[in-house]
Amino acid sequence: MKNINIAVIPGDGIGPEVIGEGIKVLKAIEARDSNLSFSFTKFPWGCEYYLQEGKMMDADGIDQLAGFDAIYLGAVGYPGVPDHISLWNLLLRIRKSFDQYVNLRPISLLHPELTPLKGKSGDDIDFLVIRENSEGEYAGAGDRLFQGKPEEVALQTGVFSRKGTERIIRYAYEEARRSNRTLTSISKGNALQYSMVFWDEVFEEVGREYPDVETYSYLVDAASLYFVTDPERFEVVVTSNLFGDILTDLGAALTGGLGLAAGANINPEHKYPSMFEPIHGSAPDIAGKGLANPLASIWSASQMLDFFGEEEWGKTVLEIMREMLQEPQQLTPDLGGKATTQDVGDRFADMLGKR
Amino acid sequence: MKNINIAVIPGDGIGPEVIGEGIKVLKAIEARDSNLSFSFTKFPWGCEYYLQEGKMMDADGIDQLAGFDAIYLGAVGYPGVPDHISLWNLLLRIRKSFDQYVNLRPISLLHPELTPLKGKSGDDIDFLVIRENSEGEYAGAGDRLFQGKPEEVALQTGVFSRKGTERIIRYAYEEARRSNRTLTSISKGNALQYSMVFWDEVFEEVGREYPDVETYSYLVDAASLYFVTDPERFEVVVTSNLFGDILTDLGAALTGGLGLAAGANINPEHKYPSMFEPIHGSAPDIAGKGLANPLASIWSASQMLDFFGEEEWGKTVLEIMREMLQEPQQLTPDLGGKATTQDVGDRFADMLGKR
Ligand SMILES: CC(C)[C@H](C(=O)O)[C@@H](O)C(=O)O
Ligand SMILES: CC(C)[C@H](C(=O)O)[C@@H](O)C(=O)O
Repeated sequence: MKNINIAVIPGDGIGPEVIGEGIKVLKAIEARDSNLSFSFTKFPWGCEYYLQEGKMMDADGIDQLAGFDAIYLGAVGYPGVPDHISLWNLLLRIRKSFDQYVNLRPISLLHPELTPLKGKSGDDIDFLVIRENSEGEYAGAGDRLFQGKPEEVALQTGVFSRKGTERIIRYAYEEARRSNRTLTSISKGNALQYSMVFWDEVFEEVGREYPDVETYSYLVDAASLYFVTDPERFEVVVTSNLFGDILTDLGAALTGGLGLAAGANINPEHKYPSMFEPIHGSAPDIAGKGLANPLASIWSASQMLDFFGEEEWGKTVLEIMREMLQEPQQLTPDLGGKATTQDVGDRFADMLGKR
Repeated sequence: MKNINIAVIPGDGIGPEVIGEGIKVLKAIEARDSNLSFSFTKFPWGCEYYLQEGKMMDADGIDQLAGFDAIYLGAVGYPGVPDHISLWNLLLRIRKSFDQYVNLRPISLLHPELTPLKGKSGDDIDFLVIRENSEGEYAGAGDRLFQGKPEEVALQTGVFSRKGTERIIRYAYEEARRSNRTLTSISKGNALQYSMVFWDEVFEEVGREYPDVETYSYLVDAASLYFVTDPERFEVVVTSNLFGDILTDLGAALTGGLGLAAGANINPEHKYPSMFEPIHGSAPDIAGKGLANPLASIWSASQMLDFFGEEEWGKTVLEIMREMLQEPQQLTPDLGGKATTQDVGDRFADMLGKR
């Protein structure tokens, strides 16, 4: 009997709604599998908490989370709290504190109608972006000097350590080898002559240990073009924190939008909890109206199942998602349907129950 | 009688071919307009030069160029010369030395068949990206410490000065006001808490002087999604050096590829020469075969005409381009045609002659 102990942070805006449906799906699995159980502990952290308590999470919040197997997060951000405050003190803090240095973001087209691209099908758009998730452009290093004066200058330093760069690139080579796919590194060595030239060197160095893996290396500008014109080129992609951020939203655009885009923030060693989240924001404008699409949140639950060795269930969740996407009218408005957030979760649980 | 004194740097790979056709078009205009003339002075700089002479341009290259009105550049980069060397010593050096702080990149769909997006027409995709072009992530500031050791670290610092940030944002507001379009700033304040929070503040501050301009502000990840799903949202866009690099290649993907993407590196004060270039690379694999599409290079020539007050001719060039794009078989292979680089230039000059 396996129990997965999950800290739930519903967060802001549509976060609670979509996470609720993800939990519904996990409970439906639990009901079907006598060897698997989940326990859920909710944390009220987020921007509302900040506005009441003056902090995004408790002072010992990281300690409180440390004992869990996983964190299941909705969305963070709300008008009235500057984004860089809300995110650095919750989402980004968790990613960094728990060394969740791998961000796994699948870019897979589950139904051809979902892509805005002409003539592309699920065979053409089916890859995995592995985003560095602990340092790089998001190191948080920088300064503002001479504030308000004519000579004012803002400095933002990307910090690429050998350890941090090697481990993400190695993870990506392992994944490419394991799944027998090509590996593409996306960087920008022609302009960023310190960080990205270093990245490219590490990609080559580590690659010597993986002569069986076929590799490509693209500039980020060219890659963003190829995402649109030739998504077939990509199988496993490894890239920096910032480029991964940009490219995975672009990937989401190709596969049905943010309502379907999931992300796993992984500490591969299981030394700390890993975090699973839809990559969309808190969308305060549609919060509480049953309009939010819970499929991204459910997809990220399937990533959780995969990570804990329950790949069969992970696959089943994606199969049901594929089936549900055949009937757009049963989906939320962003996908052309009339269903509410809850309807989609109910139907999902129902279909799971019939498996 | 106006003469525009142009320094021509054909550069590497397909550069000379496409620039040759651009010059052909300018000469055809000269033949039709008794009040306008061009003089062309070629510089042999680039990677071949580097391999022979050990330098990308002459030591006093910047001085040699300083007296020209404009620089017309093909492409830089060739196998055997690391990109960060070739570019920092030629293209990026010119942009910086001549304070070409505005990079104008039109994203306009000239024919509906050219876009890979479903159901989008020229009305939907028609905007201008104004990219900061002199500092920011491309400041060239950084270091590599403890090289080769386990504790190695690469640092790359984005430098955003008040002067540099204000002037590009002000330029963009002026352009939005002049053309009565909305202005969208693209940044990433939620993660890059020094540089991009500063950018956002300056965007707001300068905006107070332009209450008549309708503004939007997007995160770069969201913006890259909207480029694909809702390009209608954009009219004038202002963004940082790196984000502009990425987003304009993405924009090129939406409008027919790099074979059609032009860029103007502008010093608005005319204190130094401005530079006009197709934004594609040197594509050494197809160089010398007549396969390269010269339309990006010709489009950038039309930007040059605009910049020197010859908007009528600039518009005429774009009209002819639109006409030519109606007949794909008369275009280069990247656009589905059978014509050579030269054929396209000849036809263009011919059509100009008939105007
Ligand atoms: C909310 C924001 C800080 C975050 C990021 O930039 O990483 C988000 O865009 C994401 O992709 O997870
Ligand atoms: C060649 C390279 C340095 C350049 C850039 O990154 O600016 C190019 O991609 C561009 O967009 O003009």
